[in-house]
Formats: sequence, structure tokens, C-alpha cells
Amino acid sequence: MFIQNAWYAGAWAHELTKDGVLPRKILSKSLLFFRTSSGEVTALRDRCSHRFAPLSAGRREGDCIRCMYHGLVFDKDGKCVEEPGRKGVSPNTSVPAYPTVERHKLVWVWMGDADKADLDLIPDCHHHVDPSWRSIPRYAHFKANYLLVLDNLLDFSHLSFVHEKTLGGSKSIAEIRPKVEKTEKGVQLTRWYLNEPAFAPYLRGYERFDGAIDRWNIYHLSTLSNHFSMSAGSAPAGTGAPDGTLHPQTMQFHSHQVITPEDENGTHYFWTYGHNFALDDARFTEALAERISAGFKEDRTMIEAQRAVIEESEGEDIEMAFILADNGLALGRRLIDERLAEESKTTAAHMEPAE
Amino acid sequence: MFIQNAWYAGAWAHELTKDGVLPRKILSKSLLFFRTSSGEVTALRDRCSHRFAPLSAGRREGDCIRCMYHGLVFDKDGKCVEEPGRKGVSPNTSVPAYPTVERHKLVWVWMGDADKADLDLIPDCHHHVDPSWRSIPRYAHFKANYLLVLDNLLDFSHLSFVHEKTLGGSKSIAEIRPKVEKTEKGVQLTRWYLNEPAFAPYLRGYERFDGAIDRWNIYHLSTLSNHFSMSAGSAPAGTGAPDGTLHPQTMQFHSHQVITPEDENGTHYFWTYGHNFALDDARFTEALAERISAGFKEDRTMIEAQRAVIEESEGEDIEMAFILADNGLALGRRLIDERLAEESKTTAAHMEPAE
Amino acid sequence: MFIQNAWYAGAWAHELTKDGVLPRKILSKSLLFFRTSSGEVTALRDRCSHRFAPLSAGRREGDCIRCMYHGLVFDKDGKCVEEPGRKGVSPNTSVPAYPTVERHKLVWVWMGDADKADLDLIPDCHHHVDPSWRSIPRYAHFKANYLLVLDNLLDFSHLSFVHEKTLGGSKSIAEIRPKVEKTEKGVQLTRWYLNEPAFAPYLRGYERFDGAIDRWNIYHLSTLSNHFSMSAGSAPAGTGAPDGTLHPQTMQFHSHQVITPEDENGTHYFWTYGHNFALDDARFTEALAERISAGFKEDRTMIEAQRAVIEESEGEDIEMAFILADNGLALGRRLIDERLAEESKTTAAHMEPAE
Repeated sequence: MFIQNAWYAGAWAHELTKDGVLPRKILSKSLLFFRTSSGEVTALRDRCSHRFAPLSAGRREGDCIRCMYHGLVFDKDGKCVEEPGRKGVSPNTSVPAYPTVERHKLVWVWMGDADKADLDLIPDCHHHVDPSWRSIPRYAHFKANYLLVLDNLLDFSHLSFVHEKTLGGSKSIAEIRPKVEKTEKGVQLTRWYLNEPAFAPYLRGYERFDGAIDRWNIYHLSTLSNHFSMSAGSAPAGTGAPDGTLHPQTMQFHSHQVITPEDENGTHYFWTYGHNFALDDARFTEALAERISAGFKEDRTMIEAQRAVIEESEGEDIEMAFILADNGLALGRRLIDERLAEESKTTAAHMEPAE
Repeated sequence: MFIQNAWYAGAWAHELTKDGVLPRKILSKSLLFFRTSSGEVTALRDRCSHRFAPLSAGRREGDCIRCMYHGLVFDKDGKCVEEPGRKGVSPNTSVPAYPTVERHKLVWVWMGDADKADLDLIPDCHHHVDPSWRSIPRYAHFKANYLLVLDNLLDFSHLSFVHEKTLGGSKSIAEIRPKVEKTEKGVQLTRWYLNEPAFAPYLRGYERFDGAIDRWNIYHLSTLSNHFSMSAGSAPAGTGAPDGTLHPQTMQFHSHQVITPEDENGTHYFWTYGHNFALDDARFTEALAERISAGFKEDRTMIEAQRAVIEESEGEDIEMAFILADNGLALGRRLIDERLAEESKTTAAHMEPAE
Repeated sequence: MFIQNAWYAGAWAHELTKDGVLPRKILSKSLLFFRTSSGEVTALRDRCSHRFAPLSAGRREGDCIRCMYHGLVFDKDGKCVEEPGRKGVSPNTSVPAYPTVERHKLVWVWMGDADKADLDLIPDCHHHVDPSWRSIPRYAHFKANYLLVLDNLLDFSHLSFVHEKTLGGSKSIAEIRPKVEKTEKGVQLTRWYLNEPAFAPYLRGYERFDGAIDRWNIYHLSTLSNHFSMSAGSAPAGTGAPDGTLHPQTMQFHSHQVITPEDENGTHYFWTYGHNFALDDARFTEALAERISAGFKEDRTMIEAQRAVIEESEGEDIEMAFILADNGLALGRRLIDERLAEESKTTAAHMEPAE
């Protein structure tokens, strides 16, 4: 069960080339993304209305796509505009199109009720287009339900263990309790690790200062689009970072991570890890992406293994134990359950007969 | 659900060697085909009556097959004729045998009520043994339900798209409406493409004349054995082919294609594509088989992709759209549904208690 | 459905090293075996109580295991002894531990009611530690339900066919009826093949005498732990082996085979094939293990093929035929059914409300 009325990241903008098509399954539905000659992006159901051949096996013809089974042609709105051997087209030959918007280098798609597709709900990823930041768009695929990925993000204590030699590097991360706050759109977590003796492993070789470090992860997870937006950083210890004073040698980062359900057992992971210093050092931008990627592969291994154990446990009368570190995770799960309940209630009301 | 009372192509005759065994699943039942010393063909359930070991893992001993688990021996009729360590055999040790006939290079098997196995119902594939025709027996396997394969054959408009560069080569195929007729045994389709500028790609390099072409596909699909029998050809345009006059340079073909359900998700495809000219040009016979085979691989790719989309759509409240090209396909599906309904009615009547 | 209240072989002792962990699924539950610094063996559920990460992806820390997702630490009894970032641990964080005992080179685990874990029920495999015997511990995995493996062991007539060129070598094995006896713990089978012209193929090159052979397989299968204990041998014909007189050139063997259900479709197979002559000939010990192993691979091929046919037959109204050779197998199956019925009755009674 997924929240339908939300913008989901469906692709990176660069994945949609002028002539190509991109098939991708979102919320258990196979979609076909493409870009018209005017640069507009569109998403159709990847299923010909006629005999259910995948349109992604078809051919781009101008701003349309031709099904290469029996030749029906569909425009960017999913309307069938050609049926070989007849004038006009047969009835009921359109395929569903989904509201689609390109913003901040991501292509967002709305799978729910099109009337509710409010552009103001699109998550803010402006760092992707802000010249004072550098990052490389990355994509990963996890063979697990997206909730397990959100759980992972909502409890950074795992950095000390899963990422001991990559993103973590300190047991403090697991030992310090974050501040957990409910926000209008989701959950805010604030974690400060003061006076740490060493940089995180992923920064080795790129340290900008010697000595002890004040380090932080401050992030918000929206439970609507599963958008994780994090400020992170390392400043010389005692120079006032916790109070908002940023020493010139501070290494500051901003990460966007957008988690889109593929289906019940698969998750799309769109992410960046930007920096606002060393802007001309392309090698650093690349190294950062590679090292963070190595960390996310560790997450993937753990989460996919966890998924297998959860599956084995189905049918057993057993619940996961709640520990102190679970505040963020538990709040996130609760908010998602509430949204799902809200949405199913609305849908039910919608379907009641008028009196 | 499959029609049971019909002859199904189970193997090419040459697949049954003197000493070998051929395991093949037909209508969801694993069978074992073999040939006795007198040349007779037989099909047994590929399942030892004792502990359900596959007989195909057994050993031919004369005209019998020995199960190599505990040694029971079965004759060509499935009768258990040896049980190690006792005189005679235990009761209920026979395995089912199915009426099996070799005709026109194919081995036909009857999976239904043996009393109804009328030899007159075996499809006519005499071209395979007619010295005025040449063809090479070929086999393909599709991971899809056989109905999707029949759909494909009943709408040749796909030649323009799936086979654009192999069997098709002209958009006319999709644009011309065939004549569709119900016959005693199935569906007859007649397609004429007059004054075409070029040969189909699969004939490139083997053209027998220059200039425009009158081209045709006239075929019948029996919905009993899923036997597709097609006359096809290319004649110099305007020389009277549509009226039955065959110019000496006409390139005439006859194709037999027999579609046998393996199970709900698999299909056996036995086919030939014969020619009645250039009879001594073995290279042409071979090239023809290779090129047609390339086309059938295009079908397989499309049909298997279609199958995946159909599976994804299960549970959705959505129907395939009906277009003008669907007359043949729709008639074929209706006839099969009628046969299935008829057969299930007969079976039910059969099982009613006598008064 | 498995018998729960029994000792099952979970590992060979040598598989549990000082620092390592061994994950293995027993009766459909993933377990984690390890050995403490004092040499004690333990088995925990391989599932962190917190978010169900597999503990086998964790890290040994002394006699404990740390989950490498969020860092909880468990001792050898499954008790959570550390939760990062708090004093003490949260409630309900223990993981199940199972009674585990090392004996005769095997590690035995009890999956049922711990109160009933009677050490006297552990099968006797003393030959593994008896200096007058030599053997090499071996392990195999079968992708089939354990009952199919027991069936195999309870009817040696298959040696003549499955193992014609390895363990069998004589059709006599299938032709002679064994003595089948019900015992307190299971089934006893006695098979004598007198005056055989040749040794079994697996002894070729290692024959200790010329001339005809009296050969035997005498074995017991306990239906509690699926422990198969077999005396086998080959003696010069007519020297009195059947009456208990062992001629000095007799080649005597003792095999232990312990069959542990992994889950409904998988089986662990722990076995040895010991000899009490040529004790200093390590090459013979090794050759014997290799040759027997080749035979067991033949069993695996047959049983896995049989499993596929059984699966195909599900839903068909068909039963396996009973033949004369099935006495042992049928008795074994009946005893297991009785144990299962007994156990489910006890469990039901256990769960009845007190008045």
C-alpha cells in the first residue's frame, strides 16, 4: 500500500534524452518517461491499450510513441492518434498519462488523483541548481520495501556499525540521542557529535583542518514524497558551529535523497551529496559521490538481508523490539500510517453513492 | 484451461531416435516420447507410478523403459512388466499412455478421452512429405501462454512493426484489412497486398523477378489443434495472382505452424516454411528457415514482454481495447472459448450419476 | 510440518571455529551457530530482536555477537547485553537461544520445548571418536523435503539402479527382500547378499581378497533425529559372516547419516562412512569418502528430479503405487506420521485453558 497523492521522483532529468524513452516502475505500475522536442517531460503507463504490449519496446516518432506490436501511436498525453488501416482511432484506446514536472534536475510524477497534483507540494531540491553548491546526481536500486529504507534514514545510529569504515567512523553517532521533532510535513532530526577526534572515513585525504571536530547531521524527512534533505558538516571543534557560527574551514554538505517505491519489494533511490566549498575541485565532487555511494551499498546489503529475515518471519507471532534509538523511525512510521489511513478514508468517501 | 480432446503436435519425428527418449511437457503434463524397434511412437506420462521419479531419467531396454530409481520396467503402453524381486508386478503400477501417431513428419499426441482419438482429426501437413515442396522442420519455445501466440498469428498487421526488417517490410500489411471467415474448424484469413514496390526483407538476394509485386498471405487456423496452414507468395504485379493465375516466376510458399501448450506459461512452436521452386537449392531452403526463424524470435521477444505486462495488470480493472484489426483474433478467441465451454459441459454430463 | 522435540544435527563440530559464526536454517528457522572461548557451542535465532537484521551479518565480540545494523550485542544465551547509547537494555530485546550440545563431532540442536531436551536422546555416533575407526565428516545439501531422503534410505533396492556403477554393482540388492523390523526408536533393516561375484564398484582397487563375497547392509533409522546408523561389509563368501564370524580379511564399514530438515524444500545431510581396517591408509579413508560422495550426488540428482514431478502432480487425484520393496519406507513414514500426530496432540492439550 502506497500513498498515491504525492509527487514521486521518477527519474533524473538527464535520464530523459531527446529521442529516448525510459521505462521505470513506480508504485507497482510500469511507466514510460520521455521528453518532447520542446523539452517537456511526460509519463505514460507503459502498456499499449490494445494488447498490453510495453510501449517501451516501441519507437519514438516525433513527440509520440508508436507501439511496435500493431502500430498504434500515442501522443505525450497518452491519446491514441493513429491506428493503422483506419481513419481516426477506435474508442478506449488512450493510455493513462500522469502529471509530470521537471524541477531541480529531477522529474516528478503524480500517481494519484490528477486534480490534487499541486505543484507547491514538489519537494525543494534547489541545491541541485544553486551555483554555490556542487553535486552529482546518483541513482541506486534496493530490492526491498521503501519503508525499510526510510527506517534506515531515520536512525543514524547505524552509521557507527553499517558504515563503520565509510560514512561513520565513530561510535558517538550511535551513543548520542538525536533531537526528534514532528514537523508539518514529516520528521526533523538533529544530531551533534562534539569534539570528535577524527573525520569520518569518507573525508580522509580531503580534510580542511587538523584537530578535533564538531560534526552534525540535521535532516528532515517528508513523509509525503519520501524526501530526505540533510545539512551535514564538520567544523573545527569549539568554533561555534552548534550556535550557527561557521568557521571558514568548515566542511559543509547538503544531501538530498528521494525514495520512491518501485513496488512492494523494490525501491528507487535518487540522491546527491553536495558541498559548498572547493567548488572548482571536480575530483573532490566525484570522490565524494563515489564514497557516499560505497556507503549506500552497505545499506543496500544490510536492508536486503533484513528483508529476507522479515519474509522468513511472516506468520510467526513476533514483533520487532522497540529500543531508545527508535524515536525517529517510530514517528516516521506513524506519520506514514496516518497518511495512508487518511487517503483510504478519502477514497472510501469518494466512492460512496450520492443521496 | 486447455482443450483436451484434440491432437497436439508433441515432437518432430526426427526427435525420436531409435534408442533415445524425449521428455516434453504437454498441457501441463510431463510426457516421455520414444520410438520402439518397429518404429512405432509412444508417449507415456513421465512419472514412475511408484515414487514419481521421472522415467526420462531412466534407461531404454528394448522397447521398454526402466525407471532408474527402483527399477520398475514399463512397456510402450505404460504397462509395468517388471518389478525387481518379485514374480509379476504389484497392482496399480501402470503409467498412463497417450494415443500417439506419426504423420507428415510430426508426432501427434491425444491428451483427452482416448475413445475420441479420431485419426481423421489429425491436421493435414502433407507438404512435409510432398516431393514438390522443400522445408526444414523447426522448433521454438515461447515463455508465454499459447493464446498470446495464436493472437499474434491471427493479426498479421504486426508484420509491419514487429517484423519491419524481416518478414514485413511494408506498412501496407497493417493498412489493408484482411478477409476474415469462420470455417468448420476455425478461422480463415486472406490478405492481398497489390503492387508493392519491394519484396519482403526475408527474400532479399533471392528475388526471382524485378518490378512491382502482388503479395499474399492466405491462411487457416484450426482452433482444435492450433494448426496454422498458410499459402503465401509474391508474383509479378498484375499477372493475375489474385485470380489464381500463377506466373512462372511466382515465389510460392506454404507454411505449417503448430502451436502446442506446454503449460499456462509456456508454448511449443513447431513450424516449417516450404517453397515449391528452386527445389534443388538447399542453400535457399536453409536461408529461408533461418530468416523466418529470426522473425519468430522477434515475435517471441514481443510476446514474452507482453506477457509480463499482462501479469502486472492482473487485479486491475482494465480491459484490452478492441481495434479494427482485431476481427481475426476476436473470432479465434471466441471459437476457442466455445470449444472449451463445450468440452467442460460434456465432461460435467459425463460425471452425472446414472439414474 | 516437522517433529520439534528432537535433537537435530545442525553442524559438524569443525564448522564452528573459535572466532567465526555459522548461519544455517533448521526446521524453517534461520539459526546462527558459534563457539565461545571456552569451547561451548550455542545456537541463536539468526534475527536481531530490534529490526530483524541477520545476526550472521554481525561481528563476534568475545563470546558475544554484535548486530552490525544498530549495534545491539547478544551473549551466547541470546540475552541482549548492550544497547548503544543507554545504560542497560530495552525490554524484550533477547533473541531465542536453542539447547545445543557437541557430541561425537556433531553439534546437536533442540528446536522444541527446551524442558524436554533430554541429553539421553542424542543419537549415538561414537564411531566418530573411536580410535578403531576412521572416517571423514561430510556434508551435502539436497533441494528436497527430508522425507524423500528418508524414503531413499529406507529402500536400498535403488542401489542396483541409481548407484549401478558406484555403491551398487549388483542387481541382487534389488532382488533380495530385506528383513524389516520396527524398533523402539524407528526401523531396522537387514540385507544380506550371499556369494556375490564381485565387490561393489566403490571398493574397486581396494579389494582385500579374491573370490566370491558375502555382503551386507544392516541399518537402523531413528525417526526421531533421522539418524541412520549402518553396519556394512564384504567378507569372503561362506566364512560365516551371517552368523557373526568375521574372517580377518573382511572389509567392515560403519556409516552414520543424519538428515536434518532445512525447510519444506531443503535438507541438510551430515554423513560419515568409516572403516575399521587399513587404519593407517589415509588415502583409502579419503577415497572412500569421495566415492561414497559420488554416490550421494546420484541420490541428490534423482531425488531433486523426483521432487519436481511430485510438485507437478499436486492437485491431481493420484497416489503413489505401493510395491513389495516399500515395507521399510512405509513403516518409516507411518512412524513419522505417528510422532507428528502425537506431538500436535500434546501441543493442543498444552494450549487448552486450565479450568
